[in-house]
Amino acid sequence: MSARNAFYAQSGGVTAVINASACGVIETARKHSNKIANVYAGRNGIIGALTEDMIDTSKESASTIAALMYTPGGAFGSARYKLKGIEENRAEYERLIEVFKAHDIGYFFYNGGNDSMDTAHKVSQISRKMGYPVTCLGVPKTVDNDLPVTDTCPGFGSVAKYVAVSTQEAAMDVLSMAKTSTKVFILEVMGRHAGWIAAAGGLAGKKPEDAPHIILFPEIPFEQTAFLKKVQQCVSDYGYCVIVVSEGAAYANGQFLAEAGTRDAFGHAQLGGVAPVVANMVRESLGYKFHYAIADYLQRSARHIASDVDVKQAYAVGKAAVQYAVQGKTAVMPVIKRISDQPYRWKIESAPLSRIANKEKKLPRHYISKDGFGITAAARRYLQPLITGENYPPYINGLPKVAKLKNKLVKPLTGTKFVV
Amino acid sequence: MSARNAFYAQSGGVTAVINASACGVIETARKHSNKIANVYAGRNGIIGALTEDMIDTSKESASTIAALMYTPGGAFGSARYKLKGIEENRAEYERLIEVFKAHDIGYFFYNGGNDSMDTAHKVSQISRKMGYPVTCLGVPKTVDNDLPVTDTCPGFGSVAKYVAVSTQEAAMDVLSMAKTSTKVFILEVMGRHAGWIAAAGGLAGKKPEDAPHIILFPEIPFEQTAFLKKVQQCVSDYGYCVIVVSEGAAYANGQFLAEAGTRDAFGHAQLGGVAPVVANMVRESLGYKFHYAIADYLQRSARHIASDVDVKQAYAVGKAAVQYAVQGKTAVMPVIKRISDQPYRWKIESAPLSRIANKEKKLPRHYISKDGFGITAAARRYLQPLITGENYPPYINGLPKVAKLKNKLVKPLTGTKFVV
Repeated sequence: MSARNAFYAQSGGVTAVINASACGVIETARKHSNKIANVYAGRNGIIGALTEDMIDTSKESASTIAALMYTPGGAFGSARYKLKGIEENRAEYERLIEVFKAHDIGYFFYNGGNDSMDTAHKVSQISRKMGYPVTCLGVPKTVDNDLPVTDTCPGFGSVAKYVAVSTQEAAMDVLSMAKTSTKVFILEVMGRHAGWIAAAGGLAGKKPEDAPHIILFPEIPFEQTAFLKKVQQCVSDYGYCVIVVSEGAAYANGQFLAEAGTRDAFGHAQLGGVAPVVANMVRESLGYKFHYAIADYLQRSARHIASDVDVKQAYAVGKAAVQYAVQGKTAVMPVIKRISDQPYRWKIESAPLSRIANKEKKLPRHYISKDGFGITAAARRYLQPLITGENYPPYINGLPKVAKLKNKLVKPLTGTKFVV
Repeated sequence: MSARNAFYAQSGGVTAVINASACGVIETARKHSNKIANVYAGRNGIIGALTEDMIDTSKESASTIAALMYTPGGAFGSARYKLKGIEENRAEYERLIEVFKAHDIGYFFYNGGNDSMDTAHKVSQISRKMGYPVTCLGVPKTVDNDLPVTDTCPGFGSVAKYVAVSTQEAAMDVLSMAKTSTKVFILEVMGRHAGWIAAAGGLAGKKPEDAPHIILFPEIPFEQTAFLKKVQQCVSDYGYCVIVVSEGAAYANGQFLAEAGTRDAFGHAQLGGVAPVVANMVRESLGYKFHYAIADYLQRSARHIASDVDVKQAYAVGKAAVQYAVQGKTAVMPVIKRISDQPYRWKIESAPLSRIANKEKKLPRHYISKDGFGITAAARRYLQPLITGENYPPYINGLPKVAKLKNKLVKPLTGTKFVV
C-alpha cells in the first residue's frame, strides 16, 4: 500500500505548547514516509478542511518544524468550531470526506480538547460508514486539564507553572509593601468549569502564612461571608492576603461571580472579570486597599516560562499519535499515564476516543482543603511534577525567537466551494 | 576615622530588581569595612528608621546577600511614605537624625524614585544644619523610567521586557484564533504619568501588520473616534487588533479613561481598570469579540523574565552609591549614561540629587509615531538595548528560588518611641 497524506488540525483555545504537539506529529510522520506522504495542516483548524484551505507542511524545512517546539500560539491557526451531530449537519461530514478523498488523506490528527475528541470520534465512525475509512487520532490539548483518562493534558503544566510563578512573585511584591500600601491582591486565572489552574497557584506557598492565602475554585460554591472572614483573618494575621480566583468561581445556585451573559461558538458562557467583582466585595466590606491582575491570554501563551515536563509531554502525544496511526490504530488518543510521583515518571498509552469525548474531569474534592480555600498534600503530589523544569526558548534582541512558517497552501482539488 | 554604620531603605513601588541594588549596596559596603561597619536596612523603608525598626544585614551570609540578585519584591519591605517639607514636619527629620546618631549611622542610601531623591536631598541638608552631617546617596529605582538625568531607571528594563514578551506571546495566541474567536485583545500596563512601559510593548512588532497595532500613551490625549477607526482598520486589514494601553491613558481634559466608570454584571463600578473601558468602547461601537489582560503587579515583580541589562544596572547603581559615599561624595545619585546604542554600552556617573528630586521625565513626542498610536525608530533605538539578555533565577521544584533572610533586628537605642 502506498503512502497516503495526513490532515492535522489545531482546535479550540491554543496553549503555550500546542505547536510542540504539531512538531511531534510532523517530525514523526516524516520518519514514516512509507505510510504517510505529506502532512497537511488545516488553516484555522477544521475550517481549513471544510473550505479546502490547507497548509502543506512538507514545504517547511526541518529546522522550521523544530522551531515549533518553542513557538506559542497555534502555528496554522486554530478555530472554535464544533461540528454538529451527523443528524443536524450531514453536509459538513460529507464535505470533510470529500476533501479527504480529493487529497488522498487517510489520517486525521485532531489536536484539541473534549469537543474535538468527540469530532475525531465521529469522523472515524462516519468515514467508515461512507466507505472511505480514515484513521482518526486525537491529540490531547487543553490548559483546563479537564480531559478524562489521561493523567494530565499538554498545555496545563505550562499554565500551571505560569500561575504558580506569578503568584509567588506578585505575593512577594505585595508583602513587601503591605505596611503602607496594598493589602489584598487578587489574581484571576482561567478554568471555566474546573479549578485545576487555580489549584496550581497553591504551589506558590506551603505554610498557612504563605501566599496564596485563598483560592476560589469553581468546584466550591462561593460563600461571601466565609470568604470575607478569611480575608480579614489573613490581613490581621499576616498583614496581607493574596487570592487566586478561577474565572469559573460561582455561587451555590450555579451563577458565575463574573457572569457576562455572552456565549462563544460552542455555546459556553463567556466569562471575564471575576477579579473586580471580588475586589469590590473586599473594598465594600473591609475597606482594604487592593489590586488585581487578570492574566487572561498571557497565561496560556507564556511559552517563555513553559514547564519542561509539559513541553516534553506535548511533543510525546503528537509523536505517539502518529506511531499509533501507522500501527493501524484508530479512534484512539494518546494519554499520559503517571508511573510515580517522586521521582516523577510517566509513559504514553492509548485510550479509545469514546472514553474521552465530551467528558470533563473536575478537580477532586480531596485535592481541596476542608475549608474550601486551599489545596491539600494530595493536590501538591499531583501538581508538583507538572511544573518541573524550565524549557526556555531562544531569544533574539531580548525577545523570544519563534518559527517563521511559509504556510504554502495545498492546491484545491474538489472544484467546489463550501461556506462555513 | 573609624568605620560608621550605614542605613539603607527601599522606597515606593518595588521592582523585579530593587533587591539587586540592595545586593550591590551591601556587597560593596562589605568591601569597605574600613569606612562602613554594618549596613542596617529599614524594615518597611524609611518607616524603619523613624520607628527604630532596622534589620542588621551583617547577620546575613554572603550567599544570602548574593541571592538578593534574583529575588523580586522588596527584601526588607518598602513603603509609600513621603517625608513632608521640613516646615511642615520638623519632628520627622529630627527623629531621623536622633536614630542615626544613636546607631552611629553616617551613611544614608535611599533606593527609590523622584520623591525619595527629594527626601535624600533634604536629609543631606538638614543633617548638616543639625550638626550631624550624614552622607546621603540616592539609588535610582522605578519601573516608570521617569527619573531625569539618568538614561534609564533600574526596574524599567525588566518590566519593559515582560511587557514586550507578553505582548508578542499573547498576540500570537490571538492571531491564531481570530478567524472564529477573539479579534481585539487589550493589555493594560503600568505608567500613570509616563508612557515608557506602554512604549516597550511596541518592541513586540516591527511592521504595520505586527502586533501591537495600537498603543495608548498618557502623553497623547485619547480620541475615541480616531481610536475606533484604527481598531476597525486593523481588524479589516490584519484580521485582529492588539492594543497596549497605559493605565494613565487620558482624555484631552486630563480625565483618565479608567475613571470613566464602567459597571460589571452586578452593577458595581469597576475600579482602576482602563482595559475594560477600552474593551467596552470596542464592543459597543464595533461589536468585535474581545479579551483583555491586566498585568498589574505581575509586570513589576516578574523576576523570572528580568532583563539582564537591567539586573546588571540595578547592581551597578547600588555598588556605585557606596563607592561614591566612601569617596566622600554626598547628595548625589549614580546615573546611567549611555555611551552607544549599537553595540549598547553604558557607564555610571554621579549627578546631584537637586537635579533629580521631584522631576519627571515623560516619553518625548518624537518617540511616538505621528498618528499617536505607535513608537518611532528613535524609540526603538532607545528601548531595544534595555530588554536585552535573559537573567534567569535558579529554580527549585519548578519555582524560582529566592533569598531567605533572617532579618535580625538591630536593638533599639534611642529609648523613645515614634509613631508614624
